[in-house]
Amino acid sequence: MSASAGIVPRTIEWIGGLDGHVSMIDQTRLPGELVMLECRDADTMWHAIRRLSVRGAPAIGIAAAMGLVLGIRDDASTDRARFSKRIAEVCEYLATARPTAVNLFWALERMRRCANEHSSSHPQAIKLALLDEAKRIRDEDAEMCRAIGRHGEPLITPGAGVLTHCNAGGLATAEYGTALAPVYTAHEHGVRFHVYADETRPLLQGSRLTAWELQQAGIDVTVLCDNMAASLLRTGKVNLVITGADRIAANGDVANKIGTYGLALLARAHEVPFYVAAPSTTFDLSLPDGSAIPIEQRDPDEIRRGFGPPTAPADVACYSPAFDITPATLIAALITERGLIQPVTTDHIAAVIRRTGP
Amino acid sequence: MSASAGIVPRTIEWIGGLDGHVSMIDQTRLPGELVMLECRDADTMWHAIRRLSVRGAPAIGIAAAMGLVLGIRDDASTDRARFSKRIAEVCEYLATARPTAVNLFWALERMRRCANEHSSSHPQAIKLALLDEAKRIRDEDAEMCRAIGRHGEPLITPGAGVLTHCNAGGLATAEYGTALAPVYTAHEHGVRFHVYADETRPLLQGSRLTAWELQQAGIDVTVLCDNMAASLLRTGKVNLVITGADRIAANGDVANKIGTYGLALLARAHEVPFYVAAPSTTFDLSLPDGSAIPIEQRDPDEIRRGFGPPTAPADVACYSPAFDITPATLIAALITERGLIQPVTTDHIAAVIRRTGP
Repeated sequence: MSASAGIVPRTIEWIGGLDGHVSMIDQTRLPGELVMLECRDADTMWHAIRRLSVRGAPAIGIAAAMGLVLGIRDDASTDRARFSKRIAEVCEYLATARPTAVNLFWALERMRRCANEHSSSHPQAIKLALLDEAKRIRDEDAEMCRAIGRHGEPLITPGAGVLTHCNAGGLATAEYGTALAPVYTAHEHGVRFHVYADETRPLLQGSRLTAWELQQAGIDVTVLCDNMAASLLRTGKVNLVITGADRIAANGDVANKIGTYGLALLARAHEVPFYVAAPSTTFDLSLPDGSAIPIEQRDPDEIRRGFGPPTAPADVACYSPAFDITPATLIAALITERGLIQPVTTDHIAAVIRRTGP
Repeated sequence: MSASAGIVPRTIEWIGGLDGHVSMIDQTRLPGELVMLECRDADTMWHAIRRLSVRGAPAIGIAAAMGLVLGIRDDASTDRARFSKRIAEVCEYLATARPTAVNLFWALERMRRCANEHSSSHPQAIKLALLDEAKRIRDEDAEMCRAIGRHGEPLITPGAGVLTHCNAGGLATAEYGTALAPVYTAHEHGVRFHVYADETRPLLQGSRLTAWELQQAGIDVTVLCDNMAASLLRTGKVNLVITGADRIAANGDVANKIGTYGLALLARAHEVPFYVAAPSTTFDLSLPDGSAIPIEQRDPDEIRRGFGPPTAPADVACYSPAFDITPATLIAALITERGLIQPVTTDHIAAVIRRTGP
């Protein structure tokens, strides 16, 4: 992990031993201030997840796992049944922080399994095993991002212009991110290039988070409004587009932050290759294609008064999908921790994702 | 003008006789509050233009013309030469309000010509002639917008979904606007349809102004972030796109608010016709194509802190063109006060625009 020191944000970490704490970047304060939030109990962690101090599916999973450790480490029970009950209670509580975040449930389920495997041990041993498991979730996520970075790095040639959308960077994960992993890896190896970051309305994760973390890493970055991407692509300054993904169907259709689909169409119109970076855990092979992925509609006030003061009539109707579906046919390759999937077809995806092991 | 009463905003009007005043909507207060600004002297008008209380090329021209009348009507000179000098001074002063607004100079030049034509008259008669001329500029603009509306109306079929970008509505002109003129005309004739308004970053003219004025007129409107247009187009709910134009080259390439070009590409990808509405005065036949139109870069702070608090790192580079160029090949028709230009070719444009009279 030392190679990354100083170039990627320390999004979320466990500091010290069982009596230690979780240190995380308070993402609600970015880009104005870099404030580290210290969590020493499950309640503080619940609120940190709830208010988006930590966000991005992988980072939320890590936060929940570490939150469980915070919630049970001071429990004085020596009775194993009572201690198990306490673990279940804290898991249930943390799961309510963001009811729709799949990684939250996945991480808590993994922690529960770990506790069950050690159920015959002394509570103190279970506590230590859970701390190890939480750290392992973090480290595995970091390693998965690193592998995505290694596979995607050759795409970032010297002098390249890379356009990205939203934040699928270090702030959304333990370390290198997904879409930004090839960028960080190339930078680490001394390649010079330029990143363009769509600001990504309505919540501005591109300008608030992606621009901030790339600047911190010393990577050249330029912010643009989402509606400027076509004009930028036309200048010829963009050689490739990389985004992350929230869910990928069996045929390679990608659900990702709203605006991704339009960007893929614009990239195609300018003959610029469009890549999607995601770990194998993002694939949902139970869905034949993207039409089966439900699209959440967000609170209209994110559009009407997303910056505080009203920027639209108070009661005007809004169209505000959180995600859109980019058809596989617009995607040059999927960048996974197991390698590139190219061309993007059902057969290629099945071969890579169904494979056991790395 | 009575037909429009109540459905389009009273953007700017002269109230009363020579001792009257200019009443205009303070657009900086929209959509939060509808505040009418009363201008009784040239200085107040200068500041109203400067701080964008009135905006949109045609509306700025009208404001300047009326501002000249405010600036000279109380001049007590009976000496014709001294009075002429006063007119020239006020014109020069008003021209500094927004140094790049072409319509400002065009309107002041027209007022100067009017004064010259009456230079042998008594100052009081010149004042009355100038007030008439200012009102005429307003009325001619209103009539031009009405004619655009008549020609574009058949495009708005019952149940249609109309997508627009930025504000080329009544708030940018004396009355019906350009892009919104067909919409208002269809509404006036009882056609039911739905308008989708891109919010239009960075300055949000779509959500602040277009949504507001359509709501005032009782027209169904839904706001979306610019990056949601592709997703909306894919739903099939949009039957046509109409935008305004800032300048149109001889071959039909259109300079308009940033985001227009991308929207035209997205419309094409979904086989939705893309229209541009503009009066004949917007055509610049001296430019063979859009590549000759200079594109202004805006202040990066419109992106970095466009809503007050910072939404990007304070010193991050921004790509912030004010306009983009939509190639004629993406435009189904140009809607002018002289009729539709379709298909959009150099020959068709020359035939319609070079024609004298309507």
